[in-house]
Amino acid sequence: MVTIDDSKVPNFIVIGAGGVGVITALSLCIRSKSNVSLVVRSDYDHVREFGYQIESCDYGSFTNWRPDHLYRKVEDASKSGTFFDYVVVTTKNIPDGPVSSRVPVIIKPVMESNHYLNAKRPTNVCLIQNGIDIENDILEAFDKNLYNLSLLSGIQLIGSTKTGEGIISQVGQDHLSVGAFDHDDSHAVAAAHAFVDMYNNSGHNIVNYDPNVRYSRWRKLLYNAAINTTTALVGLDVPRCLEFAKDKKSTEEQIFLPAMKEIIALAKSENIELEEEYAHHFVNFSRDIMFKPSMCIDCEKGQLMELEVILGNPLKIAERNGVSTPVLSILYNLLFLTQSSLKEKNGLLKFDESKARIV
Amino acid sequence: MVTIDDSKVPNFIVIGAGGVGVITALSLCIRSKSNVSLVVRSDYDHVREFGYQIESCDYGSFTNWRPDHLYRKVEDASKSGTFFDYVVVTTKNIPDGPVSSRVPVIIKPVMESNHYLNAKRPTNVCLIQNGIDIENDILEAFDKNLYNLSLLSGIQLIGSTKTGEGIISQVGQDHLSVGAFDHDDSHAVAAAHAFVDMYNNSGHNIVNYDPNVRYSRWRKLLYNAAINTTTALVGLDVPRCLEFAKDKKSTEEQIFLPAMKEIIALAKSENIELEEEYAHHFVNFSRDIMFKPSMCIDCEKGQLMELEVILGNPLKIAERNGVSTPVLSILYNLLFLTQSSLKEKNGLLKFDESKARIV
Repeated sequence: MVTIDDSKVPNFIVIGAGGVGVITALSLCIRSKSNVSLVVRSDYDHVREFGYQIESCDYGSFTNWRPDHLYRKVEDASKSGTFFDYVVVTTKNIPDGPVSSRVPVIIKPVMESNHYLNAKRPTNVCLIQNGIDIENDILEAFDKNLYNLSLLSGIQLIGSTKTGEGIISQVGQDHLSVGAFDHDDSHAVAAAHAFVDMYNNSGHNIVNYDPNVRYSRWRKLLYNAAINTTTALVGLDVPRCLEFAKDKKSTEEQIFLPAMKEIIALAKSENIELEEEYAHHFVNFSRDIMFKPSMCIDCEKGQLMELEVILGNPLKIAERNGVSTPVLSILYNLLFLTQSSLKEKNGLLKFDESKARIV
Repeated sequence: MVTIDDSKVPNFIVIGAGGVGVITALSLCIRSKSNVSLVVRSDYDHVREFGYQIESCDYGSFTNWRPDHLYRKVEDASKSGTFFDYVVVTTKNIPDGPVSSRVPVIIKPVMESNHYLNAKRPTNVCLIQNGIDIENDILEAFDKNLYNLSLLSGIQLIGSTKTGEGIISQVGQDHLSVGAFDHDDSHAVAAAHAFVDMYNNSGHNIVNYDPNVRYSRWRKLLYNAAINTTTALVGLDVPRCLEFAKDKKSTEEQIFLPAMKEIIALAKSENIELEEEYAHHFVNFSRDIMFKPSMCIDCEKGQLMELEVILGNPLKIAERNGVSTPVLSILYNLLFLTQSSLKEKNGLLKFDESKARIV
C-alpha cells in the first residue's frame, strides 16, 4: 500500500459504515478532491471481496463500489502510516454505552497516530451525529493544542439504510450542514468551508456551510427530543403517533408541541432563539411521511438509543439554567428505563431476580 | 337440567373464567352457600370434559373440578331458566374495546332473562374489576328500578393466572373487598354483606365488607394509575422499573410518586382523602416482588389494556374538577397510542399507510 502522507490531497477517514457513513464516503469519492478511507467493521470481509452494492437517489446504482481504502478497525488505519486530515465520525453517539463504543475511545488510535506522524499538522474531527454538547467528550479527551485539533459539526438529513451485508439503499436526498463547533475557531471555520467544497456534488447532494452550528443542533433537537423519543416509547412510526392520538390531536397538542416548547425555552436559556414555527413545521412535515425515527428503530433492533445526547444533555442544561421541563423529563425518565432494559438485553447490565436488584 | 329457580339458595353466575374468575367461583363453591354457574368461553369444551386443574395457595390442589353449572356463553345461561341473584363480572373492563366485550353488552342476556323470569326479584351485579366510575356504564344501560338492580363493587388483590387450557395457578392469597357502589342503597349494602358471607372461607381467603367502596377504588388506583401504567410503557416488571432508574431513584421520585400525588389531589377533589403514606407503601411494597402488572402483561400478549377505567375516567374527573395532572396526562396520552397500536394488531382499527390515515 502506498502511503500518501505527503500528497496535497487531504486524507479522510470515515468511521462508521452504516447507511449514513457509506453515502458520506461515496459523496467524497465522487467529488474526487480527497483520498477516502472507510472503517467497515462487521461487513469488512464481504466489502473487501465484493464491494458495496448501492442504490442511491443522489448518485444512481453502484455494484462492487469501494472507497480508496478499507479498514476493519480504526486501529488498522492508525497503523497505515497515513495522516488523516479529516476524521469523520458517522457512528451513533452513545456515551452511556460500552466503553469501546464511546466516540473518544473510537477515534483515539488515529488521534494518536496523527499526533505521532506529524504533531504540527491539523486534525479536523467532524462529528456527523445527533445531539447537544457532543463536542465536550472530545475536548475533554484530547487537548486541543496538543493534538492540533479542530472540531467540526455535521448535521445530516438523509434517508439511507444498510439493508444487508454490503447493501445500501439511499431513498432520501443527502442534506449536510457543516460548521465549526466553536465559530471563533478560525482554523475550524476554514476546515469546515474546505469540507463543504470537498463534499459538494452539485445537482446531487445538498451541502452547506453552517455558520451557527449550535442553533442548527437545537433546531434539529426539536424533532429528536419530542418526536423521535415518543415513537421509541410507543413503538410506532410518526404518522401513526399523530393519527392514533385521542381525537387525533393529543399527540400533537399534549406531547410533541409541549415538549418542543420546552426545547425552545431551553435553547433560549442558552441564548439561542428558535422560532416556534419550526415546532409546527416538524409536526406537519412528518405527518404524511411513513417514517420510524432512529430511537424507535433502535428499540426494535434491541440496540442502545442515543438517549443521553438527545435528552440527557439538554436536561443537564435545564437543571443548570433552572428551566422547567415537565414533559421532556418524563419522556427521559421513561426512556431511561427502556435504555436500561436494552442494556440488560445486551449484557451490559445484570439484574438478579432473586434479589430484585442490579448486581 | 334441574332449574333451581325457586330454591332458597342464591344463584351466582360468574362471568369471565380467567385466573380471577375461576378462583371466585371456587371460593363460592367451597363455602357451599350458593349455586354457582361459570361462563367459560374459550376453554368450555375442555373444562366440560376434564374440569379444571387448580393449584391454589388458598385451597390446595384440585383435578377435574367444576362449579355447579358451566356455560359457554352468557346467552346460554340466560336460556337456562335460572334467575341469577348475583351476576359477578370478573372480565377485564375495556369500554373502548369491541362492542361485544363491553360489560353492559356482556351481562345484557342475563339481565333480560332475570327481568323476564321475575321482575320483582332483585338482581345484584358485582363488578370485580379495576378502575374508577365503572358503575356508570351499567347504570346507563339498565334502569335501576326496572331491572331491580343493585350494584356491588368488588376489589380483589390476588395472584392467580390461567396458565393453560383449564389450568389455574393461584400463588397469592385472595383478598376481596365487597361493598355497594352507592352506600345509601340499603338493598345493595345488604346484598354486599350477604355476598361477603357466601364468599368467606375463614382461614383460607380474606373477604371483608367495604363500607366505602369509592375510597378503596381510589386507593387501589394509586398503584394502577402510576405503577401499572409505567410498566406497560417500558415493558418491565416493577422491581426493574425501580432499580433501572437514573441513580436508582428517578422512577420513584419523578414518575411513581408525582403520579400518585396527582391521584391524591384528584381524589380530594371528589371529597376522598387518601393518605399520602399509601403512595410510599405501594412503592416499597412492590420493590421486592417480581411482578408484572396487568397492563404490562396485556401489552406483551397483544391484548387491549384497561386504560380507560384506570386513567381515562380519572382524567375526565380532573378536567371536570380543574385538577392539574401533568404526569398522568402524559402517561395517558402515550398509552393511548399503545392502546391504538394494540387495536390495530387486533383488527379493531385500520390504518392505510399509503394515505397515512386511519380508514
